[in-house]
Amino acid sequence: MSKSRFEYVKQFEQQTDTLLLPNCFLVVRVDGRAFHRFAAAHKYRRPNDERGIGLMNRCAERVMREFPDIFVAYGESDEYSFVFRRNTTLYSRRQFKYLSYVVSLFSSSFVYHWKEFFGDEELQYAPCFDARVVCYPTLRNMRDYLSWRQADTHINNLYNTCFWALVQQDNKTPTEAEQILRVTDSGAKNEMLFTQFKTNYNELPAVYRKGSVLVWERTEEGASVVTLHEDIIGNGFWDARPELLKGQQD
Amino acid sequence: MSKSRFEYVKQFEQQTDTLLLPNCFLVVRVDGRAFHRFAAAHKYRRPNDERGIGLMNRCAERVMREFPDIFVAYGESDEYSFVFRRNTTLYSRRQFKYLSYVVSLFSSSFVYHWKEFFGDEELQYAPCFDARVVCYPTLRNMRDYLSWRQADTHINNLYNTCFWALVQQDNKTPTEAEQILRVTDSGAKNEMLFTQFKTNYNELPAVYRKGSVLVWERTEEGASVVTLHEDIIGNGFWDARPELLKGQQD
Amino acid sequence: MSKSRFEYVKQFEQQTDTLLLPNCFLVVRVDGRAFHRFAAAHKYRRPNDERGIGLMNRCAERVMREFPDIFVAYGESDEYSFVFRRNTTLYSRRQFKYLSYVVSLFSSSFVYHWKEFFGDEELQYAPCFDARVVCYPTLRNMRDYLSWRQADTHINNLYNTCFWALVQQDNKTPTEAEQILRVTDSGAKNEMLFTQFKTNYNELPAVYRKGSVLVWERTEEGASVVTLHEDIIGNGFWDARPELLKGQQD
Amino acid sequence: MSKSRFEYVKQFEQQTDTLLLPNCFLVVRVDGRAFHRFAAAHKYRRPNDERGIGLMNRCAERVMREFPDIFVAYGESDEYSFVFRRNTTLYSRRQFKYLSYVVSLFSSSFVYHWKEFFGDEELQYAPCFDARVVCYPTLRNMRDYLSWRQADTHINNLYNTCFWALVQQDNKTPTEAEQILRVTDSGAKNEMLFTQFKTNYNELPAVYRKGSVLVWERTEEGASVVTLHEDIIGNGFWDARPELLKGQQD
Repeated sequence: MSKSRFEYVKQFEQQTDTLLLPNCFLVVRVDGRAFHRFAAAHKYRRPNDERGIGLMNRCAERVMREFPDIFVAYGESDEYSFVFRRNTTLYSRRQFKYLSYVVSLFSSSFVYHWKEFFGDEELQYAPCFDARVVCYPTLRNMRDYLSWRQADTHINNLYNTCFWALVQQDNKTPTEAEQILRVTDSGAKNEMLFTQFKTNYNELPAVYRKGSVLVWERTEEGASVVTLHEDIIGNGFWDARPELLKGQQD
Repeated sequence: MSKSRFEYVKQFEQQTDTLLLPNCFLVVRVDGRAFHRFAAAHKYRRPNDERGIGLMNRCAERVMREFPDIFVAYGESDEYSFVFRRNTTLYSRRQFKYLSYVVSLFSSSFVYHWKEFFGDEELQYAPCFDARVVCYPTLRNMRDYLSWRQADTHINNLYNTCFWALVQQDNKTPTEAEQILRVTDSGAKNEMLFTQFKTNYNELPAVYRKGSVLVWERTEEGASVVTLHEDIIGNGFWDARPELLKGQQD
Repeated sequence: MSKSRFEYVKQFEQQTDTLLLPNCFLVVRVDGRAFHRFAAAHKYRRPNDERGIGLMNRCAERVMREFPDIFVAYGESDEYSFVFRRNTTLYSRRQFKYLSYVVSLFSSSFVYHWKEFFGDEELQYAPCFDARVVCYPTLRNMRDYLSWRQADTHINNLYNTCFWALVQQDNKTPTEAEQILRVTDSGAKNEMLFTQFKTNYNELPAVYRKGSVLVWERTEEGASVVTLHEDIIGNGFWDARPELLKGQQD
Repeated sequence: MSKSRFEYVKQFEQQTDTLLLPNCFLVVRVDGRAFHRFAAAHKYRRPNDERGIGLMNRCAERVMREFPDIFVAYGESDEYSFVFRRNTTLYSRRQFKYLSYVVSLFSSSFVYHWKEFFGDEELQYAPCFDARVVCYPTLRNMRDYLSWRQADTHINNLYNTCFWALVQQDNKTPTEAEQILRVTDSGAKNEMLFTQFKTNYNELPAVYRKGSVLVWERTEEGASVVTLHEDIIGNGFWDARPELLKGQQD
């Protein structure tokens, strides 16, 4: 039962295990698999469930603490993006390492911390997340990536807020709600919320409208991860935190 | 806050998300990260902990049930290999899908099923697994891969059985045990176990010596996953189960 | 002007220079770029130009002699496929080496040997070839690749033979010839050649109908490359030359 | 002889034919294979052969004219680097296209233009070039790449100038010359040339010391490729030609 005559198979690993391009920002995005079903099975509140958001943020914090080369993370709904410093040399930039460690730790943390957020709502089955790793060559590209995700949050949340208002308060069926919303632009949706449901969209909690941004905060006692719900599309956020991009200019 | 001017960033995903070569067997191997520390923190029994093995097998079964294109899986210690049928077209053979789904579901299942196996031994923290995906072009290569892992199980288990016998029964320090074993070949280790510790290695439970093999069993009531502890290096295992490789000849 | 502070840029090469999967047949296919224009500029004879075919075969032979790990090559029209032995370890299976050496030597040879075939027809400009490298995991896949190319030769040649008969002998315009042929299947084309142009397609030179196959012939005096024009889709060709696939079974 | 049952083999091409990361500068470098032998066989003059340099530059110009997205090229000895604009979308950024077209056209041009530079020195055999494609994410990285090559030119040329002076003028054997030079730094080499061979290194033709830089020059009559022999490591070259990097800032 000599191992040696089989060891040649190890060579085959080289072909897929490629290295990520140096000096690029590395983004790992995890994304819930079949989370519509998962949310229904666990009675997620609509349009937003603070327990679910809290749990996602808790998992993301766990991942950031494990990999301090992640300098910013952004989450919304059932997805989370982790951005590694462009000059990271962790695991020689082997793509599989980044991908698997992040999605694995995120997934196990989701189950591990479930009870802290959902209390008596029991977890029915182990959830599953998709993940991908993407390279962004410049600061602009990386910021545009984050802006893309935050703009997506806005669009989805505005839609969902209207949709569930129609269903929950106006007794529309999901299909009816969909049809009503199909022909509305952003302005019409704001107007509908304000007129019909007495809701000023811009006064809804920022966590729903802006998603969650995780960054490191360094004080004399050490470093900790803080969770923010701010606009990251404009320059304000970045200008106020010059340490984020320090050493990462193009 | 228009999404469209940021959407170009989606193109960057294409570069890393490559497709796995058609007609190759696809192996996803998950592997515990820092499991020495994890095992110590959770008082794993040595040299083998049936609770830990049971939990790993439970997770692997969960993964197989989710992805029926996995036709065989093999586990030992803190690692598990999943072999997808060579002709699978799941997710258009996008490598990230295979990698992330398997390691994510394995990791979340590990926490989800922990209590069933470890009872009052509480889980201290969420564990993390590494994963990779590898292509094997021929039946021979795929079988040699599995043989490589099973030969590795044998070598490791024989070593560990001796090591822990020296430490637990002979009061050697780990360093002393290591020094004693450094100069022994396989025969000498068998001899040591038999003479000094009254243990016939070949009579130890097969699960320790052979690891665990998961395959589908199809009966009239449907398909189920069965866990075996047999030699998979020789032809016997494969000859006895012609359905495993049906449609997968070169 | 120290070189050292710039040398970090060499690391960036690793990301693209991947290794080809072991145990796969490696095919490099070169393909003329804008060869319609090239053929017109150099008054290629239609439907087939023996000078052009001879030159392509000469270039292919040159490539095979330079890289003896190519065990078979197949050419038709302005393309040539080179198949490397599946177990080749040339250049550690770095994909760029295979690709660039083959297409470079083929291209330079095309100019170098031009005059031997085209005589007074002067080369107007340096030609350009595209190339790709593809992995085939099994013998069946590799043979099917070659069959695909030879079936393509047949289809194209039958079409072109009819097309140019209509244009050259029947004074049709190219557009008219196209329209006539659009509605014909293979049988109708054969029939048209036979009835209208007194041509038995199957009696045309094999080099037009079957393309060119290059293999090594080893005699006592040494090894040489021979050019054949035979069917390689059926088993006959391969059965008659067992040395071709020796050591290359799955 | 239906083509369709073989066409599945086309799918296998997708796995290797990957796309180059958007927004990166793309460098294709061609490099002579076994050019020591080639130079000896064709009596290249030492340490520098103006005919060889002229031919290389001619080939590079041909490549640039064919692919106007190349905005700068740099050559020295038997290698040439071509830099494509970072925003090129030529061939959807398929790596094989860039690689094969550049090396193919360079190689065929080398033979095509040989006589213009080498006259009666007949070409003995078709030459062969290696090629690779590399991505550089930022302007700094791309400029450092070019600086790396030009610093290399300087180091090699200073060495070669000394080496051939010792061999040609001082009747040293190659081995003796090597041993003498092994212990010299850059200053000592300059000193040796000046004292022993009455040569002021800095007064040697710039083409030897700086290599060749090709850029586009746009005038009212149209665009043409010009060949320069200037320092491209410092900012001067780039500041004097703002159009080069226009639209290519990070």
